[in-house]
Amino acid sequence: MLRKKKDWMVEVFVTLKPSVLDPQGTTVQRALHSMGYTSLTGARLGKYFKLSFAANLNKTEVEKQARRMCDKLLVNPVIEHYHLKISNDAKRAA
Amino acid sequence: MLRKKKDWMVEVFVTLKPSVLDPQGTTVQRALHSMGYTSLTGARLGKYFKLSFAANLNKTEVEKQARRMCDKLLVNPVIEHYHLKISNDAKRAA
Repeated sequence: MLRKKKDWMVEVFVTLKPSVLDPQGTTVQRALHSMGYTSLTGARLGKYFKLSFAANLNKTEVEKQARRMCDKLLVNPVIEHYHLKISNDAKRAA
Repeated sequence: MLRKKKDWMVEVFVTLKPSVLDPQGTTVQRALHSMGYTSLTGARLGKYFKLSFAANLNKTEVEKQARRMCDKLLVNPVIEHYHLKISNDAKRAA
């Protein structure tokens, strides 16, 4: 039985560097505090990208391209950090 | 030696449901295509929250509170999905 190769799925997690103020996170934290969640000690916001890549690439090539995309477009290296998670599971592509 | 208990860290990943159009993701995909990354087959955007909770709670309680926060404030259940990752690692709290 032939099975079609699945697209690569790259998840990119972008967070502000710890030294950078996060007013959005502070607002979320305050809102939750005022709703009664007083055991919340902090909240930071980030971005989450799901990129899919053609299945005919190999993992090294996918990682290389994804990192280049982050460095050039998706992430601001002055204030943000990122990490990647690469998988080959079509169900997560949705 | 006494070690201070570390705060709980809850990571919340929010994504648009597959059936919901994601114009931001489409824009990112187009931009990357025009930069030459033609093996990119899709891009979707999401939100990423890092919440920290007081160390004196137990894991069940942390998860319960986090899910309630998502349902009430952080996530729009009509168009978004979310999943959580709970850990007890202070280094990730930054």
